[in-house]
Amino acid sequence: ADIVVLPGDGIGPEVTAAAVEVLRAVATRYGHQFHLHEHPIGGAAIDATGEPLPAATLDACRRADAVLLGAVGGPKWSDPKAKVRPEQGLLALRKGLGLYANLRPVQPHAATLGASPIKPHLLAGVDLIVVRELTGGIYFGQKQRSETTASDLCEYSVEEIERVVRRACQLARGRRNHVVSVDKANVLETSRLWREVATRVARDEFPDVTLEHQLVDSMAMHLIAKPRAFDVIVTENMFGDILTDEASMLAGSLGLLPSASLGEGKVGLYEPIHGSAPDIAGRGIANPCGTILSAAMLLRHSLGLQTEAECIEQAVAAVLDAGVLTADLAPAGQAATTADVTAAVL
Amino acid sequence: ADIVVLPGDGIGPEVTAAAVEVLRAVATRYGHQFHLHEHPIGGAAIDATGEPLPAATLDACRRADAVLLGAVGGPKWSDPKAKVRPEQGLLALRKGLGLYANLRPVQPHAATLGASPIKPHLLAGVDLIVVRELTGGIYFGQKQRSETTASDLCEYSVEEIERVVRRACQLARGRRNHVVSVDKANVLETSRLWREVATRVARDEFPDVTLEHQLVDSMAMHLIAKPRAFDVIVTENMFGDILTDEASMLAGSLGLLPSASLGEGKVGLYEPIHGSAPDIAGRGIANPCGTILSAAMLLRHSLGLQTEAECIEQAVAAVLDAGVLTADLAPAGQAATTADVTAAVL
Ligand SMILES: CC(C)[C@H](C(=O)O)[C@@H](O)C(=O)O
Ligand SMILES: CC(C)[C@H](C(=O)O)[C@@H](O)C(=O)O
Repeated sequence: ADIVVLPGDGIGPEVTAAAVEVLRAVATRYGHQFHLHEHPIGGAAIDATGEPLPAATLDACRRADAVLLGAVGGPKWSDPKAKVRPEQGLLALRKGLGLYANLRPVQPHAATLGASPIKPHLLAGVDLIVVRELTGGIYFGQKQRSETTASDLCEYSVEEIERVVRRACQLARGRRNHVVSVDKANVLETSRLWREVATRVARDEFPDVTLEHQLVDSMAMHLIAKPRAFDVIVTENMFGDILTDEASMLAGSLGLLPSASLGEGKVGLYEPIHGSAPDIAGRGIANPCGTILSAAMLLRHSLGLQTEAECIEQAVAAVLDAGVLTADLAPAGQAATTADVTAAVL
Repeated sequence: ADIVVLPGDGIGPEVTAAAVEVLRAVATRYGHQFHLHEHPIGGAAIDATGEPLPAATLDACRRADAVLLGAVGGPKWSDPKAKVRPEQGLLALRKGLGLYANLRPVQPHAATLGASPIKPHLLAGVDLIVVRELTGGIYFGQKQRSETTASDLCEYSVEEIERVVRRACQLARGRRNHVVSVDKANVLETSRLWREVATRVARDEFPDVTLEHQLVDSMAMHLIAKPRAFDVIVTENMFGDILTDEASMLAGSLGLLPSASLGEGKVGLYEPIHGSAPDIAGRGIANPCGTILSAAMLLRHSLGLQTEAECIEQAVAAVLDAGVLTADLAPAGQAATTADVTAAVL
């Protein structure tokens, strides 16, 4: 299998290196051949080529079976007046590969409850997955800027909503058959279309799945007040961005959470949900678990290697159980390094 | 003073009735004359007049010194295909009165820590206020709908950003001189303008105030992970909607939180941040504290009655301390009614 690795910026190279080690170990143990190719994206690509997503990187991703990404962005490229930004590379990649469904599972682990701001009794048994629409909405609508105003257009088509809701309902079938669709239908036209389409898709195609609707403001509350109430959550791009960072607090750290971005094609993009964390970059202390678990999702969703994926997931769980925790999770003074955690997983 | 009361829908009439009793008690005790006039808005106004904000209601509000509102909306008027919706009444009122700054203070109270999903040690000393931009952004931009697509335009002008950031900085001066501005500047053009303008206003006009920037996704995390880190938070309309509902969980219940919406004119709009809660409407069990505390904000911001405002706030605090709690806050089986809480505050 061909796997493109996009380290990106900040802690990106450190966490992808960790996940690559784990992938190599899986290949050896299970007798697979993984061809791993590194390409630049984001700020690193701007520095090297002037563009956040060089054509060669996109081409390589298109030809690959799967893409593993670290993170992009950093203060070096964050001047609000800059013409090119690292994030454009990531957005263009998601769009270029047609990856409209971003799956972000959240399953708090006993060993990390201490790191969560949420009371532990609310977290027992939480097992939810957010399906975030990833190639539409206000992220991709027309942007305008004049001396005195700026605008961003939020647009959705029936088809864009249908396919991501379908994906969420399919996922629910393998879980607890429950989907909550999140919108702001009392204010936004796109949300009213979203609600109509979601209702129709669920009714006509998934009579066995229960669909409920929540307004995004209420959802921001319920997500932390009663997280056990959720199975699959489906929502548009921007709401999904906000709600998944919030949901990461259920798991105790953003550093733990993986994601898979899928489209109709075979190639999927796998990345931790955390950012490039420039403040801790280069110090060898980043939590590699989100990226390692993203590699597990890669094995499952793009390569069909279910056993291998579970092997990684169990290894990460065991390492957390054993208390090998990076600084985002460990009690003060007891933090393991990226290398410690990676070695323990291996 | 002339105070317009807009009960609205669902629990709106119950909670405004409670706050009106408290205002009358304040008038008697301190020797003020409050002229209270009720007008319809939202679903109630649609039923009565066909319009969510009848001209007579808007006129009365324009002439008043202050407006106290309950909540609008409910399933009766929520058909996605409906031509008029209760929420339009509220949005038109905010816009019609030029109320661009929505102040939402959050100060967890010892007696309600048990009801919060957040660990108590994180909540001690939390005292933050969100300043939400209220008459711009995606709520008010052009909306379009065709058979197969929908769109909402998010727009901001320099002036709209300046005035709300200024208000936030002024507020910070009376507090801890610290403002966090929330945007999504790595993706949105409106957010890049927001960040530029906020930076300039703070630098040129408020050198004594520290301004920091946060991306909205990170903020959704930090708000619950380290709520003590925040003093004043300023953000655009939609982000403010989401973040304040989330922030309400710090206080233990949405039902506790008041808000004040202010513009350049003298008239302010005061409303709890909760919605019309149709599921519990008419049962006499709604938490009136958010509306009673909104009445306190009304006395402070529109009528300049600082002592009277504090009198109400202390009464509410004492009632919570005494354990007179509605169902949203009370241990199971020990809930007080709306009337119990109101009587205790009186
Ligand atoms: C880096 C940024 C563009 C990105 C997003 O907003 O989608 C990130 O926050 C994420 O959630 O993957
Ligand atoms: C009812 C709705 C239009 C309103 C809003 O989104 O502004 C409400 O959620 C609020 O926060 O006051």
